[in-house]
Amino acid sequence: MTDKLDELCVNTIRMLSVDCIQKANSGHPGMPMGAAAMAYVLWTRFLRHNPENPKWPDRDRFVLSAGHGSMLLYSLLHLTGYDLSLEDLKNFRQWESKTPGHPEYPLTPGVETTTGPLGQGFANGVGMAIAERYLAARFNRPEHTIVDHYVYGILGDGDLMEGVSHEAASLAGHLGLGRIIYLYDDNHISIEGSTDIAFSENRTARFEAYGWHVQTIEDGNDYKAIEKAINEAQKETTRPSFIAVRTHIGYGSPNKQDAASAHGEPLGPDEIKLTKQKLGWPLEPAFLIPDEVLDHFRKAIEKGKDLESLWQAHARSYEDAYPEPALEWKRCMNGELPENWDKDIPAFPADPKGIATRVASGTVLNAIAPNVFNLFGGSADLAPSNKTEIKGEKDFQSGVYEGRNLRFGVREHAMASILNGMALHGGIIPYGGTFLIFSEYMRPAIRLAALMGLRVIYIFTHDSIGLGEDGPTHQPIEQLASLRAIPNLTVIRPCDANETAEAWRLVMTNLNGPVALALTRQGLPILDRTAFAPAAELAWGAYVLKDAPGGKPDVILIATGSEVPVALDASEKLEEKGVNARVVSMPSWELFDKQPQEYRDRVLPPEIKARIAIEAGVTQGWHRYVGSTGKVIGIDRFGASAPSKVLFEKFGITADNVVRNVLEIL
Amino acid sequence: MTDKLDELCVNTIRMLSVDCIQKANSGHPGMPMGAAAMAYVLWTRFLRHNPENPKWPDRDRFVLSAGHGSMLLYSLLHLTGYDLSLEDLKNFRQWESKTPGHPEYPLTPGVETTTGPLGQGFANGVGMAIAERYLAARFNRPEHTIVDHYVYGILGDGDLMEGVSHEAASLAGHLGLGRIIYLYDDNHISIEGSTDIAFSENRTARFEAYGWHVQTIEDGNDYKAIEKAINEAQKETTRPSFIAVRTHIGYGSPNKQDAASAHGEPLGPDEIKLTKQKLGWPLEPAFLIPDEVLDHFRKAIEKGKDLESLWQAHARSYEDAYPEPALEWKRCMNGELPENWDKDIPAFPADPKGIATRVASGTVLNAIAPNVFNLFGGSADLAPSNKTEIKGEKDFQSGVYEGRNLRFGVREHAMASILNGMALHGGIIPYGGTFLIFSEYMRPAIRLAALMGLRVIYIFTHDSIGLGEDGPTHQPIEQLASLRAIPNLTVIRPCDANETAEAWRLVMTNLNGPVALALTRQGLPILDRTAFAPAAELAWGAYVLKDAPGGKPDVILIATGSEVPVALDASEKLEEKGVNARVVSMPSWELFDKQPQEYRDRVLPPEIKARIAIEAGVTQGWHRYVGSTGKVIGIDRFGASAPSKVLFEKFGITADNVVRNVLEIL
Repeated sequence: MTDKLDELCVNTIRMLSVDCIQKANSGHPGMPMGAAAMAYVLWTRFLRHNPENPKWPDRDRFVLSAGHGSMLLYSLLHLTGYDLSLEDLKNFRQWESKTPGHPEYPLTPGVETTTGPLGQGFANGVGMAIAERYLAARFNRPEHTIVDHYVYGILGDGDLMEGVSHEAASLAGHLGLGRIIYLYDDNHISIEGSTDIAFSENRTARFEAYGWHVQTIEDGNDYKAIEKAINEAQKETTRPSFIAVRTHIGYGSPNKQDAASAHGEPLGPDEIKLTKQKLGWPLEPAFLIPDEVLDHFRKAIEKGKDLESLWQAHARSYEDAYPEPALEWKRCMNGELPENWDKDIPAFPADPKGIATRVASGTVLNAIAPNVFNLFGGSADLAPSNKTEIKGEKDFQSGVYEGRNLRFGVREHAMASILNGMALHGGIIPYGGTFLIFSEYMRPAIRLAALMGLRVIYIFTHDSIGLGEDGPTHQPIEQLASLRAIPNLTVIRPCDANETAEAWRLVMTNLNGPVALALTRQGLPILDRTAFAPAAELAWGAYVLKDAPGGKPDVILIATGSEVPVALDASEKLEEKGVNARVVSMPSWELFDKQPQEYRDRVLPPEIKARIAIEAGVTQGWHRYVGSTGKVIGIDRFGASAPSKVLFEKFGITADNVVRNVLEIL
Repeated sequence: MTDKLDELCVNTIRMLSVDCIQKANSGHPGMPMGAAAMAYVLWTRFLRHNPENPKWPDRDRFVLSAGHGSMLLYSLLHLTGYDLSLEDLKNFRQWESKTPGHPEYPLTPGVETTTGPLGQGFANGVGMAIAERYLAARFNRPEHTIVDHYVYGILGDGDLMEGVSHEAASLAGHLGLGRIIYLYDDNHISIEGSTDIAFSENRTARFEAYGWHVQTIEDGNDYKAIEKAINEAQKETTRPSFIAVRTHIGYGSPNKQDAASAHGEPLGPDEIKLTKQKLGWPLEPAFLIPDEVLDHFRKAIEKGKDLESLWQAHARSYEDAYPEPALEWKRCMNGELPENWDKDIPAFPADPKGIATRVASGTVLNAIAPNVFNLFGGSADLAPSNKTEIKGEKDFQSGVYEGRNLRFGVREHAMASILNGMALHGGIIPYGGTFLIFSEYMRPAIRLAALMGLRVIYIFTHDSIGLGEDGPTHQPIEQLASLRAIPNLTVIRPCDANETAEAWRLVMTNLNGPVALALTRQGLPILDRTAFAPAAELAWGAYVLKDAPGGKPDVILIATGSEVPVALDASEKLEEKGVNARVVSMPSWELFDKQPQEYRDRVLPPEIKARIAIEAGVTQGWHRYVGSTGKVIGIDRFGASAPSKVLFEKFGITADNVVRNVLEIL
């Protein structure tokens, strides 16, 4: 092929992006124009993918971390033959189109992750590479390699400035993830102007410090240099690769190249005309794709079919040689659980002293893990506290990729974003633990997990002032409320060991979104389920744990987690005073809200208006359940440093205070 | 002085910390034991402070970023003569003590910031150094230096792993903040074990890449090496300094030194005995402070008085030479506003087309800024969108420290944490801008601002689906709710340009906590205040913008921000149908909740139960205002990529939908 055809292909990406953005009258042309060449080389000469089967398990993953350059990706997907038509492209940024403002998973075929919030794609890719290495270590056999692919990414300046990328880069270097090859679109421009005004660090030295293999390309339109660098990066197997490519934002635009104005708005008809003239591109028609360009790109279809066929042949011979692992492989990639996966989940005997729900969680995790080897994760340096370790398994470390305990380090944000990448890769049920308070560090990534509907599990322990002496910086107050505010995230706060076991059952089978477990540091009684309703009713989100005599309560006490025993105590004290209370355990708002109205009315009958909710956190949102005439006993201030029991007393999270409030409203 | 006395002093810090932690039966002994020597050298030979006046403006700032080592700091404060008694120390981690689990500002004299959530102290210190350089540039005159101090810090491995420290380090290097001198407690241990399992990057090379001056000390107990390194760091004036000090966690403990078990739990009586024996320390009494040690440390009192006296003399001669700047200086350091600071805030004339509230905010900011030169901030690379630039002022850049526009780069988290540091330093009213959605990246630092009660201003623009095409990754949905959940944070979402002006008035005078402004991308009508209630009523949080005839509404429509015009439209449509609506503008829950019951009942009369709240975000929390019989029109799902008008229509945030809902509930 000729250099001229390369040029034509790259200019097609540029102008197609520019025209679509202009039609939408909204978007980011500068990035696709500047990064078109590296993307072109990567997609036509390296990326192993099958446009007709975007779900081929052994495809290379491509992550556009600089998600605002979405038109670059849409152009590539259309040109290489994915199910994304030119009409789709012309619908860029319109209601219900397959080409939204930023790439969205799973909306668009070939889009591997939702990006836009900067730094996330970078860390997602690290998660994908972790998943790849883990599955490779677990499934590949001598002469039978069925997991063997790269994670490529394109990053911008914003990605590199965000802390989450620093965290993920440090961990990727530590883990020696040689399958990562990232191209850095080094265009010297961010929204406020030249990167000189805020970003003068030595990026390549930084990545070297993280233990990456680093290369620099001086001219972002030098196809050969890009090709050579990616080849070199592939040869480097024990370090992730960072290739800094000097580019020019808005390349080809006479008045906007190298200017911040090329970043976030359409070029405008006049500048488009000038740009097309400068690049030797026909002014008309818009959305032009020369035939020879399309022919060239669409070779990806044949090539992709061949690649996948070859792999399918491998997979079949693997299946012949190793029928059981092959079945297991399929199960994993289909996101299914093995039969009897939950057979070892214990029923915890009633015990007034009890155990912390974090301890119960650790026990349950270790009861599930031997049966579900693709349940895989760790903690952000709090494994002993979060009880996230899978006993008897090795650490996942550089060269020890069969290890199953991931050590994320004190990097909560990267952890969450990496979990997303692991889930996106497929084959893995990822989990991560930290203190509930540090969910704050993870929020941008939790939100994306919810938005993408990923099966990710968060193990958040130390879930209230019950953690005691560490004080207000460590005590969650508003965290339950603010997590519940995230659409499509399920928050579960079990009240004892058996609810914790049921929560894990639910977590494992919740396929379409992340679940956050809120678990205590402190011990909680294990309720006697012969006296109370079964813990399995947790699945409905809320249930009548203990009813008033004859099912005719004077008051309903609603509580979650460690406050359920408080409500039970209060109900006994109320009984002594002749007040009949129903105690509702409400581990999950989201699950309860999904139940039919009939069930919800059964648990919280509309005619019973005397209601008290008790939760050791902000009261926000509880009024929906207690109504105008009810009360919420919560904590609408920050916590304090003192022993746990003192705090519950001082903050009024006690049976006596519940009783007082009940008598007040009756 | 003898080396023996040094040793005795350092062991006093160690054993005092160990004994207090043992008495509390909770805490982190390992860090104080390992880092005692560097802290001792810093505090006795370098730190310019006055224990009898912890608020001396020109003191050096000391930040214990590794906040779990709080006993190290409390020991130093007690020993050097701050108002923190031995009894206070013995009350470590108890209810209402001055020695909580992690250092808390402003609770304990001499504690400069609240730390514990890792990485925050690191970035706070960067903010303090920015404030120092800005005030120095603005106030110092030839021969008259009144602002001239260092920011010292001690950091742990966790601090260096957290992304926020990477962000802040990169910016500090960029800005050439030579006044920062950070000591890294390089003890090779984190909670899960050796740092080898997760943190193998080359830390010193990383800091070099950020443009820092880097030194390494092989033996953390080598006083002379520490002294020499801090001296060298002081000589380096154009780069921040990073001194990696190889230490041993739990130093002196025969069985726990260099072990993760030294980190987060008391040593236990047996190990304490062994440790005291090993360090040659008397077994009894506990809490021992040898007289010569106390004498030596308490020299800080005399020295501190002398230092401050000298400075006071400087300040007086400055006052003589430059009376006006001197007055201004005092005003700034007292956190006061100049008279008539708000004289140029415009009244925006009514305009049906109107302007975006972000634009109004930019106008108001620029009307205040010339009169309040210590209002100082910027944006995380979105200044043109956030309208945060102060026109006619220079950038704050390395060597251009009189510049007033801070370029934070795409580093929202560091920005928020740096703003905290600027506020903590004093003299500055700091502000920072980004899109509302990216408040998610800032939450750990916003929470700390609220916990500390800092005057910090957040300018959050693009506050709903109204931002349009950028799609769900950029559209705030749950952000208003989750910010409102944070205790002591005031959220204000003005409905037009004049409410925006009033919001700024309030922001500037809100001394005891942070305020978040939520502002639109899209234009909003400027309401005709001759027809509606005055915008100044925003100060009450909610007010009757437009009442029903005779003050007898059939229904109350409550709305915020861009949904207020929707409510007004709906009220007109309802009027046509014979339904009388009151429209309440409710820019701030927090402000409204602070009003007397009488006022709240006047705005939302309990007898009027037909209520509809309208806000383009999650409905969580609104039921408290609309009650059991009301309705909330909100968005309990993620947004979508499409033009703004289409989205409001599709999500039902329209006057017609309000009308439909009103008719339903009536």
